[in-house]
Amino acid sequence: MQVQETAETDTSVSPLRRLSDLLQADMKDVNRIILSEMHSDVALIPQLASHLIAAGGKRLRPLLTIASARMFGINGQAIDNTHKIAACVEFIHTATLLHDDVVDDSNMRRGNQSANSIFGNEAAVLVGDFLFSRSFQLMVQTGSMDVLRVLSSASAIIAEGEVMQLAAQHNLETTLDTYLKVIQSKTAALFAAACQVGGILANQDDQICECLHDYGLNMGIAFQIADDVLDYQADENALGKDLGDDLREGKVTLPIIYALQCATDEDRAFWYDLFINKNFTDESFDKAREICKSHNAFEKSLATAYDYRDRALDNLKMLPDGQYKDIFADIADYVVERST
Amino acid sequence: MQVQETAETDTSVSPLRRLSDLLQADMKDVNRIILSEMHSDVALIPQLASHLIAAGGKRLRPLLTIASARMFGINGQAIDNTHKIAACVEFIHTATLLHDDVVDDSNMRRGNQSANSIFGNEAAVLVGDFLFSRSFQLMVQTGSMDVLRVLSSASAIIAEGEVMQLAAQHNLETTLDTYLKVIQSKTAALFAAACQVGGILANQDDQICECLHDYGLNMGIAFQIADDVLDYQADENALGKDLGDDLREGKVTLPIIYALQCATDEDRAFWYDLFINKNFTDESFDKAREICKSHNAFEKSLATAYDYRDRALDNLKMLPDGQYKDIFADIADYVVERST
Repeated sequence: MQVQETAETDTSVSPLRRLSDLLQADMKDVNRIILSEMHSDVALIPQLASHLIAAGGKRLRPLLTIASARMFGINGQAIDNTHKIAACVEFIHTATLLHDDVVDDSNMRRGNQSANSIFGNEAAVLVGDFLFSRSFQLMVQTGSMDVLRVLSSASAIIAEGEVMQLAAQHNLETTLDTYLKVIQSKTAALFAAACQVGGILANQDDQICECLHDYGLNMGIAFQIADDVLDYQADENALGKDLGDDLREGKVTLPIIYALQCATDEDRAFWYDLFINKNFTDESFDKAREICKSHNAFEKSLATAYDYRDRALDNLKMLPDGQYKDIFADIADYVVERST
Repeated sequence: MQVQETAETDTSVSPLRRLSDLLQADMKDVNRIILSEMHSDVALIPQLASHLIAAGGKRLRPLLTIASARMFGINGQAIDNTHKIAACVEFIHTATLLHDDVVDDSNMRRGNQSANSIFGNEAAVLVGDFLFSRSFQLMVQTGSMDVLRVLSSASAIIAEGEVMQLAAQHNLETTLDTYLKVIQSKTAALFAAACQVGGILANQDDQICECLHDYGLNMGIAFQIADDVLDYQADENALGKDLGDDLREGKVTLPIIYALQCATDEDRAFWYDLFINKNFTDESFDKAREICKSHNAFEKSLATAYDYRDRALDNLKMLPDGQYKDIFADIADYVVERST
């Protein structure tokens, strides 16, 4: 109970930390499951997987799953199943990170060398496949077909989002609508599913599960927009990856879309040279940032993020009042505020 | 009925062709499901997937699933579910091929340019992920937790086998035992699962489903050994990929293991230079083949394949007599004989 009181009273710490403290006992079991399930007699699998999993990460998605179940009160088998499903959600996330880094040819992840840059792209692809398969094996253990439906569907949507993003790279015609579809699929769909399955495991009706889903979706969109702003503005150490990666990879994210909307002829020539001719020089990043600033593209992006934050808060209305709902509201704020 | 008679009477055609003729109506529906399920609003997904799926392939795995159900007689919903699961099996197979080609950096597949060489490695990884996820979504539709258990477990085993193979590359200490574990995992596990789920969908008891599983496993091992021999001996056009790929990639397959067992000092120096120093020249392949021949390494490999063929035939004993069992027996012969 002590942990719970701390979490309720000390609101100066980040809501993620509060949630993490509150669910410490649950997360201990989730971590145990993660470690035991990523085991394989093939030594390279736990070696590579633990590189990424040990590197930390906030475990935000499994925390959301557990909180989404705990807010309705669960006990017995439902607790065990929730821990297993929280581990599944983290496995799916880890698998997508591994494949993402291969696709983006990234060298850094969470402040460490990325798995593919140490173990090779081949191993990263295959261990991603392993974690993904293992996740479905673990879901089967819980016997919940509804959970399997939600998470298999989310996985397909994530892959679609990643392909959509790949197709939109280096394309200056990328619309706001396409951008939102990409981030909704590649990022927000897993947040949505992580929350939704918590409600399912707590035996809640469709309407409640949908609210949880929508909260995760809107919070996830806000999260990704903020992330895309951070790629231009963050302190490099805090970001845990290279600043300007998106620009280097030709990703047309929201700040660029807003900057393009008010581009001068000179701006347009610069963007064309950068995205289409792929003429990326040492000065490109600073120049891009400067143009974005001159058109308030970062502020506009954050305003859009806040709009999705508001939708997420709205989705919480039907959920039971209490510490979990409060933390969910604070998380929706936090994911945007960290980038301001 | 005419098709059935043809299949029973004309044993000069390959057993795959006979099975394919026998299950023509079923496979028409499976193909319809495959096409409709690989659809996505993200155009690149069906484009890339259809490149591989349209390139043909024998559809051996889905045929095995349907035959494993049909041999017990199925009707109504069980038929629809069998078609869906057969499509799932083909999707898992296709996803592993896509990732395989990325890992092996292959340019050819089924006599065509490989998907990754046309669409890029990034797209091949992500579309593989999509097909894999879609396959689990489709499994959920059938509501069979047992099928989900078998196929998620097979998928994890396949990934383990692929990682094991990667770790064994360029390793001349690779034992027969390791080699067998690799091919059992990367290849035979899906044949085993494809047969087993047919029995499950036909409501058969565990013992029967296990016989089907074991048949698929042993036939699959025989199949892969023969495939590894073919990589040194086949007519390049018939193989549909580049001859000698395994050697170029440093894969220590069964012929090499047998050749190493009787290697002279001179042979050993050659293998060391090839596998460890990675000194692959224009003459390497012919020289390797010559050494293998001089030690009867291909014959020994095929003898091992025939041993697994025999086990597969043994696994058929408890299954009901009839045309399906006859074709299964012929397939076990055929997968080895095609390489002699």
